[in-house]
Amino acid sequence: MLFKKIAIIGVGLIGGSIGLAVKKRKLADRVIGIGRSELSLQKALKKKAVDEISLDKSKVKNADLIILAAPVHKIPPLIKELLPYFKKGTIITDVGSTKQEIIEGLDKFLSPGVSFIGGHPLAGSEKNSVEFANADLFEKSICFLVPFKSTQKTLKKLKKFWEKLGACPIVISAEEHDFLVAGISHLPHIVAVALVNSLAGVNWRGKNITEFAGQGWKDTTRISGGLPEIWMDIFSSNADKLKIFVKKFDKQWKDIRDSLLKKDFKKLKIILEKAQRKSSDF
Amino acid sequence: MLFKKIAIIGVGLIGGSIGLAVKKRKLADRVIGIGRSELSLQKALKKKAVDEISLDKSKVKNADLIILAAPVHKIPPLIKELLPYFKKGTIITDVGSTKQEIIEGLDKFLSPGVSFIGGHPLAGSEKNSVEFANADLFEKSICFLVPFKSTQKTLKKLKKFWEKLGACPIVISAEEHDFLVAGISHLPHIVAVALVNSLAGVNWRGKNITEFAGQGWKDTTRISGGLPEIWMDIFSSNADKLKIFVKKFDKQWKDIRDSLLKKDFKKLKIILEKAQRKSSDF
Repeated sequence: MLFKKIAIIGVGLIGGSIGLAVKKRKLADRVIGIGRSELSLQKALKKKAVDEISLDKSKVKNADLIILAAPVHKIPPLIKELLPYFKKGTIITDVGSTKQEIIEGLDKFLSPGVSFIGGHPLAGSEKNSVEFANADLFEKSICFLVPFKSTQKTLKKLKKFWEKLGACPIVISAEEHDFLVAGISHLPHIVAVALVNSLAGVNWRGKNITEFAGQGWKDTTRISGGLPEIWMDIFSSNADKLKIFVKKFDKQWKDIRDSLLKKDFKKLKIILEKAQRKSSDF
Repeated sequence: MLFKKIAIIGVGLIGGSIGLAVKKRKLADRVIGIGRSELSLQKALKKKAVDEISLDKSKVKNADLIILAAPVHKIPPLIKELLPYFKKGTIITDVGSTKQEIIEGLDKFLSPGVSFIGGHPLAGSEKNSVEFANADLFEKSICFLVPFKSTQKTLKKLKKFWEKLGACPIVISAEEHDFLVAGISHLPHIVAVALVNSLAGVNWRGKNITEFAGQGWKDTTRISGGLPEIWMDIFSSNADKLKIFVKKFDKQWKDIRDSLLKKDFKKLKIILEKAQRKSSDF
């Protein structure tokens, strides 16, 4: 067993999938799920994502790994509240989508004895509830790890944990992390949102035209179904980095738009070829 | 048997998948694949997508269904070239992505005796070659049918053909078709292209940052890998309809961009909520 007791705060898609993965791979003696919604907790228990559930946060006591699956801006106050229950050697981590805001928040009060390492598994979907959790969600996905208050030993242990869940952990600084995800995750999200909203209200035979769309449309816009409150939290915590990529997209969009509007097909061809070369690298 | 002899001109992903589907469902006695590349034809034969192959277009002779899987602007000249080989009752169809240009082209020379019905199965992917063809590609997908020179009998027969391939045929006018696909297919394509090009050249640890991306990025940009020559053909044949949707996206993009740049999170929330509601309808 890698850990005796793991506490997961927030058992939605990600928290629930961690629980299922831990139990499938026998990485802990006991997994406790903690949350604010009795209903969600009951669902997690029924799905066997956790061994026990509680609405009481003090139940993190004696856990040697605490995983916070909560919105970014709630992580620092949550950790502050939990401080009295940490034991020596407890590793605290999270799965939030941005890291600088969290670390700046923690820097104000976290004592040197506590091991906090930020985590961000690049897995999940627009389906946020525990019903969609699965034990293999993290297989072959990247998990960014952002050491803050950690030793070589605790970082090594958390890396091993994610490796056992099937993920590929990458150690990175908070600033680099937030820059990276602004490009590969936050930018595509806002573009997909703008795309979906472009066709709202455009109907044919009494139905929105997207009802006649094929797989291309569905794939391109899938992520726009994410919960607005989660994405507001992400955008507000990463506005400056996202701005860099907003400007990059703005330029590329104007280029392709103008080549179409001006029927400059020579330029359009160069743009399409660039994207095809790039996309064949994926 | 629905048909005695089917001729497919162009055996790539779509042509090859039609061949496989026809043979799996026993819809024709014989399927002949015709093309310009000996290599592609050999691949199609090896994959058993067709029963025989030829570089000679006159081999469409005696076919009772001829399917043209060629770029849009090549369809009218191809039909003109094939005219001497059509027999009475032959149905000619295509799988091109736009329809008005084809029908305007055909209108100049097609005699009343020939049955042309435009076709457009909303299936396929960015992988264009026959290697990726599969017999179930059209299962549960929409296939638009655009009658031009047809009788009730020939239209009924072609509808039945696509139904047997697993598709859901929808009869539509050329103008409505081109409007619809400008929104649900051509717009997402150019948006995905602009998105991919936005991150070209943005590297981390010597790699393009998209190499660290999760499924969201991959899905959102998958279609940008389509062949530039095919998409040039589509865009040039549908520039006016696409312009309508380019303007719609332009407005939505500016809205979300400005709410982010101005940190107007109240407005941003309304935009995200609209997209989430819309996208939950898909």
